[in-house]
Amino acid sequence: MTETTTPTREVGVTELALRDAHQSLMATRMALEDMVDACADIDAAGYWSVECWGGATYDACIRFLNEDPWERLRTFRELMPNSRLQMLLRGQNLLGYRHYEDDVVNRFVEKSAENGMDVYRVFDALNDVRNVKQAIAAVRRVDKHAQGTICYTESPLHTVEGYVQMARDLMELGCDSLCLKDMAALLKPQPAYDIVKAIKDDLGSDVRIHVHCHSTTGVTLVSLMKAIEAGADVVDTAISSLSLGPGHNPTESLVEMLRGTPYTTNLDDDRLVSIKDHFAKVRPKYTQFMSAITGVETEIFKSQIPGGMISNMESQLRQQGAGDRLREVLLEVPRVRQVAGYPPLVTPSSQIVGTQAVFNVLMGPYKVQTAEFADLMLGYYGSTLGERDPDIVAAAQAQAGKEPIDVRPADLIPPEWDKLVSEATALEGCDGTDEDVLTYAMFPGVAPGFFVERPQGPKNVGKDPAEVAADELSKSSSGGGPVKGPIRYSVSMDGKAHSVTVERA
Amino acid sequence: MTETTTPTREVGVTELALRDAHQSLMATRMALEDMVDACADIDAAGYWSVECWGGATYDACIRFLNEDPWERLRTFRELMPNSRLQMLLRGQNLLGYRHYEDDVVNRFVEKSAENGMDVYRVFDALNDVRNVKQAIAAVRRVDKHAQGTICYTESPLHTVEGYVQMARDLMELGCDSLCLKDMAALLKPQPAYDIVKAIKDDLGSDVRIHVHCHSTTGVTLVSLMKAIEAGADVVDTAISSLSLGPGHNPTESLVEMLRGTPYTTNLDDDRLVSIKDHFAKVRPKYTQFMSAITGVETEIFKSQIPGGMISNMESQLRQQGAGDRLREVLLEVPRVRQVAGYPPLVTPSSQIVGTQAVFNVLMGPYKVQTAEFADLMLGYYGSTLGERDPDIVAAAQAQAGKEPIDVRPADLIPPEWDKLVSEATALEGCDGTDEDVLTYAMFPGVAPGFFVERPQGPKNVGKDPAEVAADELSKSSSGGGPVKGPIRYSVSMDGKAHSVTVERA
Repeated sequence: MTETTTPTREVGVTELALRDAHQSLMATRMALEDMVDACADIDAAGYWSVECWGGATYDACIRFLNEDPWERLRTFRELMPNSRLQMLLRGQNLLGYRHYEDDVVNRFVEKSAENGMDVYRVFDALNDVRNVKQAIAAVRRVDKHAQGTICYTESPLHTVEGYVQMARDLMELGCDSLCLKDMAALLKPQPAYDIVKAIKDDLGSDVRIHVHCHSTTGVTLVSLMKAIEAGADVVDTAISSLSLGPGHNPTESLVEMLRGTPYTTNLDDDRLVSIKDHFAKVRPKYTQFMSAITGVETEIFKSQIPGGMISNMESQLRQQGAGDRLREVLLEVPRVRQVAGYPPLVTPSSQIVGTQAVFNVLMGPYKVQTAEFADLMLGYYGSTLGERDPDIVAAAQAQAGKEPIDVRPADLIPPEWDKLVSEATALEGCDGTDEDVLTYAMFPGVAPGFFVERPQGPKNVGKDPAEVAADELSKSSSGGGPVKGPIRYSVSMDGKAHSVTVERA
Repeated sequence: MTETTTPTREVGVTELALRDAHQSLMATRMALEDMVDACADIDAAGYWSVECWGGATYDACIRFLNEDPWERLRTFRELMPNSRLQMLLRGQNLLGYRHYEDDVVNRFVEKSAENGMDVYRVFDALNDVRNVKQAIAAVRRVDKHAQGTICYTESPLHTVEGYVQMARDLMELGCDSLCLKDMAALLKPQPAYDIVKAIKDDLGSDVRIHVHCHSTTGVTLVSLMKAIEAGADVVDTAISSLSLGPGHNPTESLVEMLRGTPYTTNLDDDRLVSIKDHFAKVRPKYTQFMSAITGVETEIFKSQIPGGMISNMESQLRQQGAGDRLREVLLEVPRVRQVAGYPPLVTPSSQIVGTQAVFNVLMGPYKVQTAEFADLMLGYYGSTLGERDPDIVAAAQAQAGKEPIDVRPADLIPPEWDKLVSEATALEGCDGTDEDVLTYAMFPGVAPGFFVERPQGPKNVGKDPAEVAADELSKSSSGGGPVKGPIRYSVSMDGKAHSVTVERA
């Protein structure tokens, strides 16, 4: 087939292998050690940027891998000198789960820029632009790329016009680009086209738009195609050997999809093969952490619930001896979302809404609100697009003993940097750097243990596939498997043969 | 998100679960028994047609499952009274591997129509229209739906104009519709659009076009989207629990992909969920037959070699102690294809070209030609788009002791029905029906054994997942796994050290 069109526009690609891909597929467990050998190829492949840092990778580094996340960042910087390094930042939450005072936000941005970060994708789980304002201003001050994020969700209130308004609000903050972020693979081709087109039409074609989609529902490579047709400048994909399922569309499929069209990625095919081969070898080491979802799941279009959230709720229900009530919870989630004013479902709002839905099913609607859900209803996470149910707000107020607020939540937080410094530096193993203080600030429960363990060096939790097989075998042989009965062996001891029968005592 | 457009055109869907899906994913091993409970839902879901019969399913029925393929067809007919049943027919090869005389072709079409077939997708591996002419005429005579097929391939000679010419040739035979068949997932979005568009523009928008794609490369759902935009009437998909990898795009993803666009499938969502749930339960029974490919594979764009063919060649090479020479063979395949005049690679041309490439690497280029490759070079499979290399044709002639031909191969076959009848009816267990004669005609090596075994009834080769796990365990424990045994231990018992060797008795 001769190509029918000469490409007229280059589409940039953000490679997700080093952050969101292994976060989505293998519980963020990949060790830096398993990434370094791919970095030269990634650096030379021609990506627009390399996503490699975020809340979950930071958390996993100190919680499971005994890796200093800052050291990981510096390593990436050194190994990929020609690449834009990109991170995902939860606005005023930074990489943690609460709002921080502005000075902490500023320091985090300064330190990460110093250590090598280039592109900051800043989002707020409620799409409350006030919660990303400080982080975006901080990124601009250190002269790095500030990307404002629109979390894509669907509700009776969410419209193309609403997303355009949010795009306008973000651009007024001085963003260098926008991201349309589809964390649950709900963005279908037509809305993808409509939203990107409307933003370009309204704000001008020179407004850079990046599109991030997961692949869970199987439709989003088509959505990327339509977004590109509508003018999207950069799209996010993951190398094929770390793609699909609850992860992302394969980078190589994107490249091939565009052949013959007016668009091209200009990525280096040979480099992509090397990157693919590298992660194809690494992936089996993390089988134990792999997501159970491998094919596609389209029922989430109805519940709007991301895959990871469903498995969380299942485990909560099982702990309460109510493993059979998942269907009720799935029906309850959209109702809770409506009561809460239709927040997008993304960390942390997905966990807050999901847990409240479990509570409602187990104990009756809003008989008990979780502390986090009460805070959400009272405005302590920010504002939502829809009005919150006044009765439930009143109940939250009574239960939490707090007033509803409508200011930016961080405005209520007193200066806290000095306090964080003194608390952190008092910890055994803390090296007194701002980086360590930030680790403590964002993960106060995990940091103390990490500081103590750190000198022992990184711990790779991946396993050689042969080792995994041997583990499986020993697990089965110890009676955990279907074989209940005795096993007969021929045992030779000091040269003499014995017939030995073994069974579980 | 409110839908932005009112659908203006219904796109038909052919469900592949009962034929190509399990053929591509689990070596065609699914028993009828594991399909029947899904038939009511499939019948009511609103599909344009249900593909359920073809060469590999027929072969697997008599070779592995001790099922009469005609009984399977009658069962489908009974269980899906409202559906168009569809089959894949290899033109003059019927469901076998050689060319048959026209009378045999006629009888096969008559008998399958009598037993319930509605839609015949007729293809020739070389895209030689002369090889599908008789089958299409036969289908028209019994008043069933005749679909002419264009096998999609790429070469310096294949152009949009060439495909349009082939479409014209097929429509002149009186086809009710056309199929653009992409057996190797090579059809990218832009060519999909260009070919469908050009055919519609040239032959008229009322010419029905069906598009069949595999999903191996990860790009073809986008290709279906573009084909639909260009006017495709029906597309082929498989229910999600039997989709992806070397199989097909998920039916539910297609449905969701079209929401908000000017197109709709009008399929019944609840029925799709039931069908999905059914096959999600069945699939694990066939784990032992599952394809090793699970993600996407885009390197085949270079070699143009379908996934199934690569595993065939690997096993041929291993048998010759040359398992390390696959890369050479992959480079040789495109050269062999060029020498042979650029045939599409699909049964049987894929096997013929692949095996010759293996021979060339092991023994030197064309030192030995397989009998089938010599026949291909001499025109005994039909004509190809490109000229065949005259030197290799001469070598084929010398080796095979046959003249090259340029007539339709079947024209050289004398009447053979009476001979087939007398041979078949002489076999133990043959019931003397035309159906049995056709089974013998197409599978003369397998039919005799099948006729003898048939009274014992169908054999389900699927296994309960628990059974599979137990098998695995016993295999591992008996030393089939990574532990080859015997294992030597130093055992200290009551304070005294012993040398102990253990192996399974």
